[in-house]
Amino acid sequence: MKYARLFVLSACTALLATGLFAEEGMWMPQQIPQLGARLKALGFTGGPEAFADLTGQPMGAVVSLGGCTASFVSPDGLIVTNHHCVTGGLQFNSTPQRDLLKDGYLAKTRADELPNGPGSRVYVTTSVTDVTNSITGGIDPKSTDRQRYDLIDRRVKERVAACEKNGARCNVASFFDGLKYFEIAQMEIKDVRLVYAPADGIGVFGGETDNWRWPRHTGDWSFLRAYVGKDGKPATYSKDNVPFHPKHFLKIAAQGIKPGDLVFVTGYPGRTQRHQTYAQVKETTEWTMPRAIRLAQEQLAILDRLSKQDKAIALKVAGRVQGLNNGLTNQKGMLEGLVKGGSLAKKQAQEKELEAWIAADPARRQKYGDVLPALNALQAESEKTRERSAAMASLSSASSYLGAAETLYRLSVERPKQDIDRDAGFQQRDWPRLRDGQERLQRTMDPSVDGALLRWALGRVAALPAGQRIDPIDQAAGLRPGMPAADAARAIDAYVGTLLAGTRLGDREFRLGLLEKSTADLLATRDSFLLLAAALDPLAAANREAAKDRGGARSRLAPRYMEAMLAKAGGLVAPDANSTLRVTYGQVKGVDAKDGLYYKPQTTLAGILQKNTGEGDFNAPKVQLDAIQALRAGRKTPYLDRALGDVPVDFLSTVDTTGGNSGSPTLNAKGELVGLLFDGTYESVASNFLFDPVTTRSIHVDVRYMLWNMSEVDGASNLLEEMGMASGPSARKSAGSSSGQAGN
Amino acid sequence: MKYARLFVLSACTALLATGLFAEEGMWMPQQIPQLGARLKALGFTGGPEAFADLTGQPMGAVVSLGGCTASFVSPDGLIVTNHHCVTGGLQFNSTPQRDLLKDGYLAKTRADELPNGPGSRVYVTTSVTDVTNSITGGIDPKSTDRQRYDLIDRRVKERVAACEKNGARCNVASFFDGLKYFEIAQMEIKDVRLVYAPADGIGVFGGETDNWRWPRHTGDWSFLRAYVGKDGKPATYSKDNVPFHPKHFLKIAAQGIKPGDLVFVTGYPGRTQRHQTYAQVKETTEWTMPRAIRLAQEQLAILDRLSKQDKAIALKVAGRVQGLNNGLTNQKGMLEGLVKGGSLAKKQAQEKELEAWIAADPARRQKYGDVLPALNALQAESEKTRERSAAMASLSSASSYLGAAETLYRLSVERPKQDIDRDAGFQQRDWPRLRDGQERLQRTMDPSVDGALLRWALGRVAALPAGQRIDPIDQAAGLRPGMPAADAARAIDAYVGTLLAGTRLGDREFRLGLLEKSTADLLATRDSFLLLAAALDPLAAANREAAKDRGGARSRLAPRYMEAMLAKAGGLVAPDANSTLRVTYGQVKGVDAKDGLYYKPQTTLAGILQKNTGEGDFNAPKVQLDAIQALRAGRKTPYLDRALGDVPVDFLSTVDTTGGNSGSPTLNAKGELVGLLFDGTYESVASNFLFDPVTTRSIHVDVRYMLWNMSEVDGASNLLEEMGMASGPSARKSAGSSSGQAGN
Repeated sequence: MKYARLFVLSACTALLATGLFAEEGMWMPQQIPQLGARLKALGFTGGPEAFADLTGQPMGAVVSLGGCTASFVSPDGLIVTNHHCVTGGLQFNSTPQRDLLKDGYLAKTRADELPNGPGSRVYVTTSVTDVTNSITGGIDPKSTDRQRYDLIDRRVKERVAACEKNGARCNVASFFDGLKYFEIAQMEIKDVRLVYAPADGIGVFGGETDNWRWPRHTGDWSFLRAYVGKDGKPATYSKDNVPFHPKHFLKIAAQGIKPGDLVFVTGYPGRTQRHQTYAQVKETTEWTMPRAIRLAQEQLAILDRLSKQDKAIALKVAGRVQGLNNGLTNQKGMLEGLVKGGSLAKKQAQEKELEAWIAADPARRQKYGDVLPALNALQAESEKTRERSAAMASLSSASSYLGAAETLYRLSVERPKQDIDRDAGFQQRDWPRLRDGQERLQRTMDPSVDGALLRWALGRVAALPAGQRIDPIDQAAGLRPGMPAADAARAIDAYVGTLLAGTRLGDREFRLGLLEKSTADLLATRDSFLLLAAALDPLAAANREAAKDRGGARSRLAPRYMEAMLAKAGGLVAPDANSTLRVTYGQVKGVDAKDGLYYKPQTTLAGILQKNTGEGDFNAPKVQLDAIQALRAGRKTPYLDRALGDVPVDFLSTVDTTGGNSGSPTLNAKGELVGLLFDGTYESVASNFLFDPVTTRSIHVDVRYMLWNMSEVDGASNLLEEMGMASGPSARKSAGSSSGQAGN
Repeated sequence: MKYARLFVLSACTALLATGLFAEEGMWMPQQIPQLGARLKALGFTGGPEAFADLTGQPMGAVVSLGGCTASFVSPDGLIVTNHHCVTGGLQFNSTPQRDLLKDGYLAKTRADELPNGPGSRVYVTTSVTDVTNSITGGIDPKSTDRQRYDLIDRRVKERVAACEKNGARCNVASFFDGLKYFEIAQMEIKDVRLVYAPADGIGVFGGETDNWRWPRHTGDWSFLRAYVGKDGKPATYSKDNVPFHPKHFLKIAAQGIKPGDLVFVTGYPGRTQRHQTYAQVKETTEWTMPRAIRLAQEQLAILDRLSKQDKAIALKVAGRVQGLNNGLTNQKGMLEGLVKGGSLAKKQAQEKELEAWIAADPARRQKYGDVLPALNALQAESEKTRERSAAMASLSSASSYLGAAETLYRLSVERPKQDIDRDAGFQQRDWPRLRDGQERLQRTMDPSVDGALLRWALGRVAALPAGQRIDPIDQAAGLRPGMPAADAARAIDAYVGTLLAGTRLGDREFRLGLLEKSTADLLATRDSFLLLAAALDPLAAANREAAKDRGGARSRLAPRYMEAMLAKAGGLVAPDANSTLRVTYGQVKGVDAKDGLYYKPQTTLAGILQKNTGEGDFNAPKVQLDAIQALRAGRKTPYLDRALGDVPVDFLSTVDTTGGNSGSPTLNAKGELVGLLFDGTYESVASNFLFDPVTTRSIHVDVRYMLWNMSEVDGASNLLEEMGMASGPSARKSAGSSSGQAGN
């Protein structure tokens, strides 16, 4: 393993010493050793180098589930993550008779552990290698942007192919907007099983009402187990597979945390946009976000209406509704932060400072003077056709049928090529994932939902301005710019009727069977959605080509913009999140969330009783309410927090996280598990664009709440024992007992 | 003036020493001197006797508006109170061209001061006299309950009549549920004028969304002025009237308050029910409140529908909607406190303790043993016909036409009697108030609103169980128990149509003309609602008679129950609120409102910017937003709080208040004005039944916010000067200036 040390442009301890900015940063593991002084100031006594060792303790225990983070907590491959990260597995294993989402699940023996559904994976990062030079080195400066794009694209694919030869899952990720590239190799465990999830009255307590909010009382944990073949190598599900034995797993710190404690979060944050230009953030603020909010609200209204009419539909669209709601709150929070919180204005001021800094020095003018104007021109260019691009994306996401048809069509176009020439996402390595996606689709496809959302999306297509029309749709549906709305609606109704009548893509066997078919075979089916996908493809392909051109230009410009920003910052800077393994640290800490309102750093069981209504989002299971009563009546538990006088539930910290961090282990200064990261506060979400050190807080579930529930509510003594925790009546801390200690 | 000292049953300094219970108590002014030790512990250095002197400073400055409290703040009768206490006056003076509610109002000269509307009064309490003996002394123990009721009723009326001979407004109020009676004499000022109210974007900022909530940013102040005849005596409105010169007015403490400061609130709290029996509170919890919530929601749905159809209707019903919403939130909060907060359970435990205390001693058993069972029997008796009683009350409150008809009818029945024999509320002294009420009604009467609400109320009448039917309605509308709902609805529709077609009560002249008519004259009009009122009267009269019987029994039992409770409490106890002048004290203090959430004690201008959306409930005027910007840009103001780094807006305190306290002056330890009480938190409202010393907080507007707005936003320099405050540019505190001070 080779680590790059290039991110330290100059040591600036003054920056580290300020409490204000110190907590920003989703650091690459290899950057942590350089943060030793700050960590020491926060009470860290260990060696920060430990975080740079991906195959050591604790980093070797931290894994990705693809979209979520998780960690090993036993030598037998037991994995803890968020409840909301196993929703798919719970749905997959539910039947009308057995609703695991509602009731939760506990495998009392290994034999009871259930396959976690198609595509469920555990990724263990095994190496991170700086490959910048082999990706961007020696490119002829006279290359066109497109040539540059193609060269980088090919080099990335070649590296990935070489890396994956020995069975690893690899990717080459861009850091600092193309300034650096790292090759990340992961072991891909393919047999993942569902072990334990609490009832939704615990795991989703607070529901959409409390989502992104504080005070919070969500018990957002669940357990999986990684299985491998008898040879210890990843294998698809088989009864003969055996539990994976990770080299490292996390120790549980049953003493928990207290306000002011240093905590680390290690995980796979998805995306941040802190290094975007002002023009990009401005578009996000003024166009992308308001539009996304409007579209989400419109779709939610449609889905709400359909759900009320038919309970079966309600179940099918539940995931989509949850996703839309989640995104809606997130986008509203971001927009509030960007506009009212003043992040956009600060971004503008920062960029003006950067421009002034460049202009102030002839050498800098020479080096960077052209970059920002050129990036802004690129941005302006892409904005010209954004309405059409967005409308096309809406079509594919609104209609599962069209989305499936487009995937099938593109796969058929790419498959005949050499693997290296196939577009990313359609290479041979992607085929199993594409198949899993088409499998999973079966649970949510519904013609009436598709019809309603398609009508809605086509309504937006009908309203596109001249010059950004989608001609194949105009022709097929008989639409034209400036058409009276009622006429357009009638035409759309008729067209959607034809589309739905002419498709068999809802048939699982038919659809999966098309995954290996040629383009000609697909067209020969005369399936309405496949024909539509074919008709749309020339325009989509042209968009992809234009994006590649712009991508080439960006690969030429953006690294220099980053270089200027980093040079001006003059310190240790964390790159934007890009779904690679990161480490962030901070303190358990409340926050002055709003004028007159302070979020205390911890919540307790008392809040569950306060919030519980016995229905909807606040419906704690009776067995939990009884356990709280028993606790109040004097029942002992080692998980009581003396300072709080109660069992703690959730807590806030200043760690810097974002989506993808869900399920991340929260570690104390010794690297022991004290909680699970599962959310950020509403006031924090705009930090994706500009970190606000004053308001940003992450939300964790306290490990003591998890352990108390496992012991007193869910009877998960088998798992407690596996994690090395005492359970049941013997769990009482008996400081005075003389035996026992000697035995261990 | 004579003060009773009977409330001190025994000095119990132990109780006073506990921080836990100390802040409970809406004290009678004459009780305050006995609280000296506690006040001293809280930092009070003055003489507590001052609060017992109703004609001294500061009590002489505190007045009632009838339902709200206010205080004199200048020698020329300038009065400050809450914005929400002058809504009627603002409405009365608004026209389609000039919306004072929306835009606010400022009289720059005395000539611009507007009549505050019919019935607007200022009541200055001039004496409080213990009259217990003359009301309940020497009653023959062999009297029947009804004889007892009538005797007390007559004695009260006689005292009131005697007291009012010299022009005062008097009433005899029961304290401790009939254990004590006090005669309260007030000067009634009848010419009240509107001087200044901020725009609703300040005075109602936060609206229904923030009502009962914290953090709060409402600028809930307005100014009136009291006018009297040239002879200095109260007189109805006349151009020749002159400003009233109160003997006392409050000094403004522009330095404001800080957390931990001792504050007093003096005012006229309406009703609390802290000394009710468990059975009474249980009925409230299990029947009254849930029913009230349901009914409010049903009426709001109807009014919402009508308001959306017609803007004129929306304006007419705005007050009713606001009242229903306000009550709804209050009732929900009470129910939450009673059930989830555990107040009902605590009440039950307290009563069990009382029963045990009585049972533990033969003398007590002899003295009090029969009281609680007898009170419970009375309660059970009244619950037998509560559905019908409530349905009748709903009818009269739903229909303004029926309500008016009932008032007119009863007045015609009572008028021929000797004044002393007339029922309370219909004596000669009440006639002007009754006329004002009929005048005011004109602004809100609307046949379509009345029809809709009447249909709704009749729907409830139709559903009454057999045995509690309202026969006159059944006969007139053709309803019967168990009738299919659709048939009942048809019958009700037809009946309401007939009622509305057959009335002229919506005609102002016609309605007011009936105030002096005989019963025969009223019946001769054949007005549909008057005929309905006449038809309902026998049942209503029977209910009144039954209530008098129960009232007599209560007057026999309740004082002994109170006596037992007070004897058991063994300390200084404040009587339940009864709309008489009280004093309460506490500290400026935040609160752990919910698990994980702390309400800070103060809010600032920053919160206005955070909340402002430019529409709906959060629509601060541009001139205010500009003033905040100017402040941020460095403009000086003496009203800045250095610790907060901003102008403070609202604050929390532990003072014990309830409805009726609205507009009460908040005083510092020197008796100077530091704010205006205007609300309690949602978590506090159940304290009306059982005071919760942990969560109860009152909400005040900080006088500095008011002064800053008057100076920087509304240009009310004339009023600032009248109150002795510097204003405009000269308002900057110039500690170093040498001139000026000598001049004053």
